Amino acid sequence: MRRAGKPRRASGYALIRLLRGGICNTDLELQRGYYAFNGTPGHEFVGVVEEADTLHWVGKTVVGEINLACGKCEWCRRKMGRHCPHRTVLGIVKHPGAFREMLTLPEQNLHEVPQNVALEHAVFTEPVAAACEILDQVNIPAGAEVGILGDGKLGLLIAQVLAAHGATVHLYGHHRDKLAIAARAGVDGRITPSPPRAAYDCVVEATGSAAALEQAIAMTRPRGTLVLKSTVHDRLNVDTSPIVVNEITLIGSRCGRFEPALEWIASGKLHLDDMIHARLPLVQAPEAFARAAERGTLKVLLTN
Amino acid sequence: MRRAGKPRRASGYALIRLLRGGICNTDLELQRGYYAFNGTPGHEFVGVVEEADTLHWVGKTVVGEINLACGKCEWCRRKMGRHCPHRTVLGIVKHPGAFREMLTLPEQNLHEVPQNVALEHAVFTEPVAAACEILDQVNIPAGAEVGILGDGKLGLLIAQVLAAHGATVHLYGHHRDKLAIAARAGVDGRITPSPPRAAYDCVVEATGSAAALEQAIAMTRPRGTLVLKSTVHDRLNVDTSPIVVNEITLIGSRCGRFEPALEWIASGKLHLDDMIHARLPLVQAPEAFARAAERGTLKVLLTN
Repeated sequence: MRRAGKPRRASGYALIRLLRGGICNTDLELQRGYYAFNGTPGHEFVGVVEEADTLHWVGKTVVGEINLACGKCEWCRRKMGRHCPHRTVLGIVKHPGAFREMLTLPEQNLHEVPQNVALEHAVFTEPVAAACEILDQVNIPAGAEVGILGDGKLGLLIAQVLAAHGATVHLYGHHRDKLAIAARAGVDGRITPSPPRAAYDCVVEATGSAAALEQAIAMTRPRGTLVLKSTVHDRLNVDTSPIVVNEITLIGSRCGRFEPALEWIASGKLHLDDMIHARLPLVQAPEAFARAAERGTLKVLLTN
Repeated sequence: MRRAGKPRRASGYALIRLLRGGICNTDLELQRGYYAFNGTPGHEFVGVVEEADTLHWVGKTVVGEINLACGKCEWCRRKMGRHCPHRTVLGIVKHPGAFREMLTLPEQNLHEVPQNVALEHAVFTEPVAAACEILDQVNIPAGAEVGILGDGKLGLLIAQVLAAHGATVHLYGHHRDKLAIAARAGVDGRITPSPPRAAYDCVVEATGSAAALEQAIAMTRPRGTLVLKSTVHDRLNVDTSPIVVNEITLIGSRCGRFEPALEWIASGKLHLDDMIHARLPLVQAPEAFARAAERGTLKVLLTN
């Protein structure tokens, strides 16, 4: 999947040399053909700007928002380019991804990485932003108990961000080693076949599995909020009547803003090193993907 | 289903003589065994108080909230008795219903019917309150376009309440005669096999059918709100990924407050007479239920 040569840089775009890339479950799903995209994958990256229209950017270490919005439609005017119906998405929808020597992104998508943030932490900005999106969508007071289902990569980041925010986080998972990472960030990790019913005003479903939705609904108290993070490709067979009877609010949650994500990463409160299970050079991308696809693997980084 | 004799009136309860009852789809589902309840059905009623601890109530024409809360738990303390986990429900859960000569309800559940409200309108208070619940849950500005799926009894009431509230309501259904009722209340009724995609910031699903959820999700714009009103007993086979990708908020909505419902009914803005398809005396309750179960039938009233 390594493509040689320098991609064409359109006006308004920056040409970025990859420094680190992070393999996400979406990348694995791309490989399995779940998306109509067969270009270079990769949307979690940190890089250095080699060329740009605005000289300020040249030489800067950057991360980049992955949605390339049209800038002209109603959504873009409302500063909701992440929902622009004409958007392309880095490494996912009609825009070549980050897992190559050089990638391009609009300058307006770039965020400079603070000096005190390590490259291996900066590469987590996109998934940490997805975790932060929850705080932009739901009012979670300090001290509020939040139940999270799923101790995979996204569940661990969400648990850590919400704990750093001040919530009392109970993370339900199946892996002692992963829950231990969350515990070091102040999260109460719990292994149980059946989380308590109607126990939380706020529940986050981050298992990546279709089967967990009903369990997440059952965990949510009447009038509570259930944040749905998993994009699954199976159709769900679900009993929706508890949503109606208990008047539950179910909120879909996808990408988030990079600003708070970089702040949380710079704060040092997230235990990101513990989540890196392997580092492989870009030329070994196929091996890196195979490693990432192994059961129980957390983040696999590509280095360049 | 008519039970002779006077039920025992416990302390704090009123004894109420039935004047009119309204048959709801839930009553039909009770008959089909969908709920573990085989007592007297009926929760939509207007009656006159014959006995009560508080003399003020005696002789008054009343409607009554259907959830009998414990009054002691956290939910009750938070004035959310409609979600009290110990509640019984008139004619649905462990409390005999309204379709008999006399029923009992706690005095605190009663609301006096204003003098200018006809009995045949007052009997709609409970389902109108369920429609009003949407306005307690979702901020719908005057002039906002709302798409409603389903031109049955509940869909028609929701359409009329939201139109009276000032929303621009598009009601999607299959029945010209029902859409005509909504049209007289200022609702734009539309017959189409496929409502427009991503067309509304607020959509209400009120079809009573499992199959409509995906259509309702498709109608909702990114970051929009989908109110789920149908309690269906089939498990749904649904693709939840558009909820996540488009960050849709899905809100379950059940019973509502009676105060705004009585105000809307008293305002005369709801076309309730048009929705009454039959009136039968209480002694002919079985025939009334059979009539209510006929396809296309709107409200069937029981008289006493």
